[in-house]
Amino acid sequence: MLRLYDYLESGNGYKVRLLLHQLGIAFERVEVDILAGETRTPEFLRLNPNGRIPLLELPDGSRLAESNAILAYLAEGTPYLPDDRLARAQVLQWMFFEQYSHEPFIAVLRFWTFAGRLEANRAAVPEKRERGTAALRVMEQHLSEHPFFVGGAYTIADVALYAYTHVADEGGFDLSPFPALCAWLERVRGQPGNVPITWSGA
Amino acid sequence: MLRLYDYLESGNGYKVRLLLHQLGIAFERVEVDILAGETRTPEFLRLNPNGRIPLLELPDGSRLAESNAILAYLAEGTPYLPDDRLARAQVLQWMFFEQYSHEPFIAVLRFWTFAGRLEANRAAVPEKRERGTAALRVMEQHLSEHPFFVGGAYTIADVALYAYTHVADEGGFDLSPFPALCAWLERVRGQPGNVPITWSGA
Repeated sequence: MLRLYDYLESGNGYKVRLLLHQLGIAFERVEVDILAGETRTPEFLRLNPNGRIPLLELPDGSRLAESNAILAYLAEGTPYLPDDRLARAQVLQWMFFEQYSHEPFIAVLRFWTFAGRLEANRAAVPEKRERGTAALRVMEQHLSEHPFFVGGAYTIADVALYAYTHVADEGGFDLSPFPALCAWLERVRGQPGNVPITWSGA
Repeated sequence: MLRLYDYLESGNGYKVRLLLHQLGIAFERVEVDILAGETRTPEFLRLNPNGRIPLLELPDGSRLAESNAILAYLAEGTPYLPDDRLARAQVLQWMFFEQYSHEPFIAVLRFWTFAGRLEANRAAVPEKRERGTAALRVMEQHLSEHPFFVGGAYTIADVALYAYTHVADEGGFDLSPFPALCAWLERVRGQPGNVPITWSGA
């Protein structure tokens, strides 16, 4: 059985849980408490030297890190990752956009909020707010012309971008200026097998 | 012919130029001056709403952004991207590591240095230095046991990580504490078709 090292509040972990549920794949979940430093213990660093969850362990003991790489692995050969060469690369484009231009701002402000670290990082907040909002604008523009990110259908690009966007308000982002984005959130929420971020697989 | 919107000093642009040269694919290069704001003009934003180079334009007018997505597109079906499902995902894992845990620190300190913005961003430098060094440590650990990042052979994971690592000194990073990493840089430099970051394709 697959084993997922995970943290329930993590959007990056949620991406993987959500896709596993949509694919109907059973897995064992191991909770790793980020706030207690459990991703930086010698034991965990032996599993993932970069000290992060999610981390997927295969039945043969192989391990795969980076949420979006895990999505690509799991989605191979399914409708969630297109076969067409350009469409596949476009899925990757949006997943790299998510990790470079979206997550470091939108996810981090949410994390600082619930971890009580907003005040300690006060000087960095305005730039993160501005860059996170810029990412939402890029999404809004694309979604005002397309129902999903790639090829007119729900793919792992949508899974990756949904994870932190649908809880962006928890980091203080107001989504009401982005109607096309809000309509897309509803379309994603309506996909077969959608589960909330609090779903632990149990 | 492929058209590459690019900026010569960019390591992200260099990744694509290097792979195109190694694949023997001719391309037309369009220089876009980041420092002069040319990636944020209305004209360029129509090409890439996220306002970044590199951007690849295909003969049919389709466009692809995000350097590592472009690498994956170009490398499909070549030895630079393995066929094996897990190995492919491991290549993606290291490319996501590069964009999330490496580039925002190592590339950004180099950019601030040559753009004369180090002083203006002084408060953010220590954290970027620390996190960039942490990324180099993760690479060193992996490379002390493996000749290349995935599967014992040169892939686009190496292309992606070489681009900014081999010029990390330009951002003030000292690579001498990382001997396995330095030996890997030499192995990458010795690959057929390697060209320097100043190579413009002309």
